[in-house]
Amino acid sequence: RINGDRLWESLMEMAQVGPGIAGGNNRQTLTDADKQGRELFQAWCEAAGLTMGVDKMGTMFMTRPGTDPDALPVYVGSHLDTQPTGGKYDGVLGVLAGLEVVRSLNDLNIKTKHPIVVTNWANEEGARFAPAMLASGVFAGVHSLDYAYGRKDQEGLSYGEELKRIGWLGDEEVGARKMHAYLEYHIEQGPILEAENKQIGVVTHGQGLWWLEFTLTGKEAHTGSTPMAMRVNAGLAMARIFEAVQTIAMSEQPGAVAGTGQVRFSPNSRNVLPGTVVFTVDLRTPDQTKLDRMRAEIEKRAAEICAEMGVGCAVEAVGHFDPVTFDPTLVARVRSAAEKLGYSHMDIISGAGHDACWTNKIAPSVMIMCPCVGGLSHNEAEEISKDWAAAGADVLFHAVLETAEI
Amino acid sequence: RINGDRLWESLMEMAQVGPGIAGGNNRQTLTDADKQGRELFQAWCEAAGLTMGVDKMGTMFMTRPGTDPDALPVYVGSHLDTQPTGGKYDGVLGVLAGLEVVRSLNDLNIKTKHPIVVTNWANEEGARFAPAMLASGVFAGVHSLDYAYGRKDQEGLSYGEELKRIGWLGDEEVGARKMHAYLEYHIEQGPILEAENKQIGVVTHGQGLWWLEFTLTGKEAHTGSTPMAMRVNAGLAMARIFEAVQTIAMSEQPGAVAGTGQVRFSPNSRNVLPGTVVFTVDLRTPDQTKLDRMRAEIEKRAAEICAEMGVGCAVEAVGHFDPVTFDPTLVARVRSAAEKLGYSHMDIISGAGHDACWTNKIAPSVMIMCPCVGGLSHNEAEEISKDWAAAGADVLFHAVLETAEI
Ligand SMILES: NC(=O)NCCC(=O)O
Ligand SMILES: NC(=O)NCCC(=O)O
Repeated sequence: RINGDRLWESLMEMAQVGPGIAGGNNRQTLTDADKQGRELFQAWCEAAGLTMGVDKMGTMFMTRPGTDPDALPVYVGSHLDTQPTGGKYDGVLGVLAGLEVVRSLNDLNIKTKHPIVVTNWANEEGARFAPAMLASGVFAGVHSLDYAYGRKDQEGLSYGEELKRIGWLGDEEVGARKMHAYLEYHIEQGPILEAENKQIGVVTHGQGLWWLEFTLTGKEAHTGSTPMAMRVNAGLAMARIFEAVQTIAMSEQPGAVAGTGQVRFSPNSRNVLPGTVVFTVDLRTPDQTKLDRMRAEIEKRAAEICAEMGVGCAVEAVGHFDPVTFDPTLVARVRSAAEKLGYSHMDIISGAGHDACWTNKIAPSVMIMCPCVGGLSHNEAEEISKDWAAAGADVLFHAVLETAEI
Repeated sequence: RINGDRLWESLMEMAQVGPGIAGGNNRQTLTDADKQGRELFQAWCEAAGLTMGVDKMGTMFMTRPGTDPDALPVYVGSHLDTQPTGGKYDGVLGVLAGLEVVRSLNDLNIKTKHPIVVTNWANEEGARFAPAMLASGVFAGVHSLDYAYGRKDQEGLSYGEELKRIGWLGDEEVGARKMHAYLEYHIEQGPILEAENKQIGVVTHGQGLWWLEFTLTGKEAHTGSTPMAMRVNAGLAMARIFEAVQTIAMSEQPGAVAGTGQVRFSPNSRNVLPGTVVFTVDLRTPDQTKLDRMRAEIEKRAAEICAEMGVGCAVEAVGHFDPVTFDPTLVARVRSAAEKLGYSHMDIISGAGHDACWTNKIAPSVMIMCPCVGGLSHNEAEEISKDWAAAGADVLFHAVLETAEI
């Protein structure tokens, strides 16, 4: 078994870097806090005898050598970046549990045939730069490097510029590495495991996603002196689209979600009807047919609503992945590790996107989940227990051992 | 008659200060651009022989002396501050037409019994610091100076700090001046005069207003892994309130408007359901009964919508004035000036709020309006013609002459 106290201590120490405002973290991608978090992780890895490689997206690969020079490495990891008001475990748990696996192997003096690479994927959250899982997406060949470098935050700063600025532009070609397998441990971020009183989620599938960015064009005008009949009210059109999105998601129950997290009014002045309203609809379901249908329905209803109101409506897809089926062999391996260790477990579908969703395209991949309190994530109040954290890390340890072979 | 070319030239020169992005202006209150606009206006006034006084709110009073030392001054003016994407005429026309009246009096060597004071009220727009007409509100005794100084912009900078920073904190007690009368010339900012093909709007009344700032508290949570049934979706509650506001405004037709110009989601990340949603509802009507009823209805419906969804709902009034009836004697004087000058005219109700709405509480006040193209204002594309501008300035000139007495 791994050392649960040590894992927890590292989690708590990393949580000091880029503190939030309510007990969580704000360590957004390519900020100074991200840089500081990377340095701390690097120091820990080097102390554990790992060697660092960094690719041109800024992803960190920390390698523990294997005994067979021809064996491809087994990758474990997740991400250290957070939401602007993020929790202490989302992503971090997977990276530091990967490190804990290595530390435990060191303690036990175990050598594996395959090298083990603990990975910190860059820009998983997609909060500062859409889409999410950007670096693993480039790694898997889904996005070009140029596309990724050109992604901009709300201040107009680009991924490429900011990566250089924090000094983490590496020299490895992105995706040049070949993987024997990829295993990612993550908190569930949803309510199921806790409700079912299970310690381990064996992740069989991941939901598919669309991020649709709507740009509505209204007529910028005075809120007081513009008669109701003369308004081209893009804010009201947005409200009607929100309601339509809700209706569409509800009509696809169970197993579908949709909603909006980001809105920008322009000029955003109390007495000016907005000239432009930009917002993102995030829609997900594990069912490919539903995913396609929901996207089509939302775009159709939005177009109808806007046409009726004279509001301009443009839609850009700023994030997308299809539903994922994880590697059955690895899934079975995770399930039997949980079984063997005596942890209660159940099969589960990931509600969130993860780097494993992209690596799954190029290598056998799997995920392990632990519960989180109240299913709450993307919230500084996100919480897990030390025991929950340790149980999943144990399962990871055993699944990695079996995959990397002694 | 006044010099329409000179008035137009000054308008175009002021429009160079704080240029917008689409031909208009961004000269928001207490910014560097505002400071620069003030300096230009001051230079013009001093060249015209006026003496400056500045009060503790930063309002500029430029005095042309009268012949009777006991006669209270006649005030004319409006404001030089603009919306973030404002037009070249909203406010500016009234200030520079006031200056043009003085320049014309100088040209004609006319002395008046009452002094004439050309006024540039601070923070009329309320875009950077709510509420609108802040300085004239303090002047009229509606707000305290402390309240005004404590108003904050979206960056958290306060009115008091910013006024000091740009160097326009004056020493006059706010409201110490006594007024014989106040005359304000402004573009209509609505479609009526143009539609009715009238050169002059004789403003008999002003609409009343409420600015209601809603703070909705949802549950910040992951957009992907949080099931629909577990969401406390403050963004959706906002959408439903928008629809309710629209319904309430439509049910009070004709003669009522309501809508939203400002929205802030927090943390405003694509994959986080907002923990907090803040937005302002701007509602107006010239009818006191309707005004009270609309406010009550909107608050009631918002509370119901939020209660049903488990969303927290707090409402703060960040702006308010009751419907205004301007001084009948001055109104008649403006009407007969338009008549005498041969300009087509009609009585009109101001859809927007103006500093005259506050001065009307402490001195006989009146407004004159000219049309604007397509009724468009609070938009950089705001437009008027030189002839329209001149006609209203002529009416102002004659009404001022009669009020200040030769
Ligand atoms: N795990 C996680 O929150 N990833 C961010 C991408 C997403 O929105 O699912
Ligand atoms: N005239 C004008 O636009 N004033 C700003 C205050 C308001 O919103 O009416």
